[in-house]
Amino acid sequence: MADAKKMVESITSMDVDFAKWYTDVVLKAELVDYSSVRGCMIYRPYGYAIWENTQRILDKMFKDTGHENVCLPLFIPESLLQKEKDHVEGFAPEVAWVTHGGNEKLTERLCVRPTSETLFCEHYSHIVHSYRDLPKLYNQWCSVVRWEKTTRPFLRSMEFLWQEGHTLHETGEEAREETLRMLDIYARFFEEHLSIPVLKGQKTDKEKFAGAESTYTIEAMMHDGKALQSGTSHYFGDGFAKAFDITFQDRENNTRHPHQTSWGMSTRIIGAIIMTHGDDNGLVLPWDIAPVQIAVVPIAQHKDGVLEAARELTAGLAKNYRVKLDDSDNSPGWKFAEYEMKGVPLRLEIGPKDLENNQCVLVRRDNRKKYFVPLEQLEDRLPEICGEYHAALFEKAAKNRADRTFTATSMSELCEISSQKSGYIQAMWCGDQACELKLKEAAGVTSRCIPFQQTKISDKCVCCGKAADAMVVWGKSY
Amino acid sequence: MADAKKMVESITSMDVDFAKWYTDVVLKAELVDYSSVRGCMIYRPYGYAIWENTQRILDKMFKDTGHENVCLPLFIPESLLQKEKDHVEGFAPEVAWVTHGGNEKLTERLCVRPTSETLFCEHYSHIVHSYRDLPKLYNQWCSVVRWEKTTRPFLRSMEFLWQEGHTLHETGEEAREETLRMLDIYARFFEEHLSIPVLKGQKTDKEKFAGAESTYTIEAMMHDGKALQSGTSHYFGDGFAKAFDITFQDRENNTRHPHQTSWGMSTRIIGAIIMTHGDDNGLVLPWDIAPVQIAVVPIAQHKDGVLEAARELTAGLAKNYRVKLDDSDNSPGWKFAEYEMKGVPLRLEIGPKDLENNQCVLVRRDNRKKYFVPLEQLEDRLPEICGEYHAALFEKAAKNRADRTFTATSMSELCEISSQKSGYIQAMWCGDQACELKLKEAAGVTSRCIPFQQTKISDKCVCCGKAADAMVVWGKSY
Repeated sequence: MADAKKMVESITSMDVDFAKWYTDVVLKAELVDYSSVRGCMIYRPYGYAIWENTQRILDKMFKDTGHENVCLPLFIPESLLQKEKDHVEGFAPEVAWVTHGGNEKLTERLCVRPTSETLFCEHYSHIVHSYRDLPKLYNQWCSVVRWEKTTRPFLRSMEFLWQEGHTLHETGEEAREETLRMLDIYARFFEEHLSIPVLKGQKTDKEKFAGAESTYTIEAMMHDGKALQSGTSHYFGDGFAKAFDITFQDRENNTRHPHQTSWGMSTRIIGAIIMTHGDDNGLVLPWDIAPVQIAVVPIAQHKDGVLEAARELTAGLAKNYRVKLDDSDNSPGWKFAEYEMKGVPLRLEIGPKDLENNQCVLVRRDNRKKYFVPLEQLEDRLPEICGEYHAALFEKAAKNRADRTFTATSMSELCEISSQKSGYIQAMWCGDQACELKLKEAAGVTSRCIPFQQTKISDKCVCCGKAADAMVVWGKSY
Repeated sequence: MADAKKMVESITSMDVDFAKWYTDVVLKAELVDYSSVRGCMIYRPYGYAIWENTQRILDKMFKDTGHENVCLPLFIPESLLQKEKDHVEGFAPEVAWVTHGGNEKLTERLCVRPTSETLFCEHYSHIVHSYRDLPKLYNQWCSVVRWEKTTRPFLRSMEFLWQEGHTLHETGEEAREETLRMLDIYARFFEEHLSIPVLKGQKTDKEKFAGAESTYTIEAMMHDGKALQSGTSHYFGDGFAKAFDITFQDRENNTRHPHQTSWGMSTRIIGAIIMTHGDDNGLVLPWDIAPVQIAVVPIAQHKDGVLEAARELTAGLAKNYRVKLDDSDNSPGWKFAEYEMKGVPLRLEIGPKDLENNQCVLVRRDNRKKYFVPLEQLEDRLPEICGEYHAALFEKAAKNRADRTFTATSMSELCEISSQKSGYIQAMWCGDQACELKLKEAAGVTSRCIPFQQTKISDKCVCCGKAADAMVVWGKSY
């Protein structure tokens, strides 16, 4: 147990230093390694497997709703990036520029894609001619690059992995529906597969995507009360279509511009998983995306029949679950600490006494609750235990969010909450960007979103006191 | 049928102009679109789905042999690329350089990865300390960039998709075994899943990978007799480990350098599929990677019961196959031509007469052979028909290769064959690079490989007449 203790002691406690705790966990759980390229990280097998599981689930959700995968180039010519005015203003300051190919200087610079709206628009202009060609429901899995000054694994890095959906529709109404359909998929993915409750809403104009008419978001609250924007969906109207000259013959034979959306979710979600569910022993992974769902640890494995039983159990479970048998020489205590650090949802122990009783012991990662399960009931009990595990994770995160959601009806109240607590602050807003900027300056908070589910706290803006219709959730964010 | 004819007529015949035929097919079958970035292409849904199916099969083969996926950065600092002398000499002339990030000039240029040996080495040097950390069996799915002067879809492009495996081992012997194991996996993938026979062998020193001790290859012969290098596997010895200072404590507690391999297969294989199996009606896709395996075409679909029956059949088949029902308004003839163009392996026709006879008609893409199958036998007959289809594709490709494999025992004979025919030329070689260069100059051929399966044609080098042990296969290549 000395080793095991050492392992855990090497993580900073989250209450002592949450940022240090986070970095300790991503390194000790072997999710990432740093590279010599500033702000770019290496996804190690365990970290990448979380992303692969994410991809598998999301990809199926996208395909089930009629989307197809495509793959567009890594580079965008400078002139193409510049076609949509707001878009280029938003992205040009943070792109990487390729200026030389081989030994030659390029006649036109290429930027490494920070997002691919412009490339999709160029492609659409080639392939869309008639209403019969619509809708186009495309998605792309790739990495993008944004030249960030300060970076942190998963949360903000120069290169990150994501998916970007890009769709084109006959009407604005259809496109808006798509925007909200995809936001719902993101919310369902978070709540049903990652056990993380989310706040769904619209971004203010200040916070919306460069070039979008409206941006919708799901916001998740981390353990420390900060918000993490976890997935966004944008409605573009026909602005990009006009800039890129995409037209189609409609059903009445008129030439029109189609309406467009895009939506993205990135490896940031791994940061969300860590900071929502993790604890001082390391990661706590949601069942559906855990690279190992059940770690089988034989107890007194040198004793007759133990290893054989452990192997047999593992082989049986492997048909339905991602299982790992650890028959290494390390002590059981070391193994317990290792799989706790790695956030494996269930540990299955089997030793000589269990063999006598024809049972095994399941231990949940989140609360170390033990289940003594007769071997013949194991397959039946597991779905139930997974369900409890998922519900408990969700519940704990929801409670944290409820405990950290505050309401402010005056500027002084808002500033006081913001200075003393960390979480969401609900307050009324008149819609004026000046008030938004003032809140940022005075209280250090930004608008997270205008939630779809509104509560009328008062009818006055918390900042200027003028008439206000919208309740906004304010907070600090990653 | 007018439309259908027009569709086919719009493809150049492969005998008239093979290169033009190829380009026509990749565009008409909607595999790719060009982008405004020179040499970079857009993978459209149908083209990308072929790659997704490839990935699924290969990824399973890799994981079944103990490999894990990781993801390393897109960029390589110039100083890192320069650490291994031969490697940088091979790649530096063809990389894209990032010189600016946002508005700032970088202090060190970054190249966009042309391949990732250097990044893997840097990572290994962080994580490998003891023999217990070995082997490392890693794979990465990503895109790489090489600044090519002339490009063609799938065959040679500035950016291409691939997988690159990188492994590290205690001993040279283990690493060599890995190199050959992965070459075998590539060969099996080609022969068992793509229905393409391959030639397995070793590259000459002139043709080997920059920095490798030895390079192994699978070469496939295209319909026009040219060779396509389709997958390579490299043994590095401990050269990179020394350059990057990767060491480990071995079982006797000595500090040593590990031995290394890398292996890659790219979207070139889509070019191989097109040029091996395609014909004047378009693509012919191997069963296992076809995005649509069975196209269901209702005949006289306005007649009672036809559409219902087609839908029912489609739903039943969809449990085990990738099926598409085409109930659009297009004529059956148009649909036939469409799915032939797209290389769908089987077409299933069902019309009023078939309903009367309780049967359907299956038509094979490769030879239009018809099978009249009683509906109750459909599920049973399909695996058999798939098997025949796979075997016929393989057989045809093998025959083409046999017909186009020649033997030369003198320089004049080799030059004559090369000037009059297109295919593989088997000839003895002394091992001297001067002879290799002379053959290139005189006959326009390069060494494809030194096949594992040797035939002793004579004991003299076809070029210089000196003693020769090795039979080399020479040819023109893509």
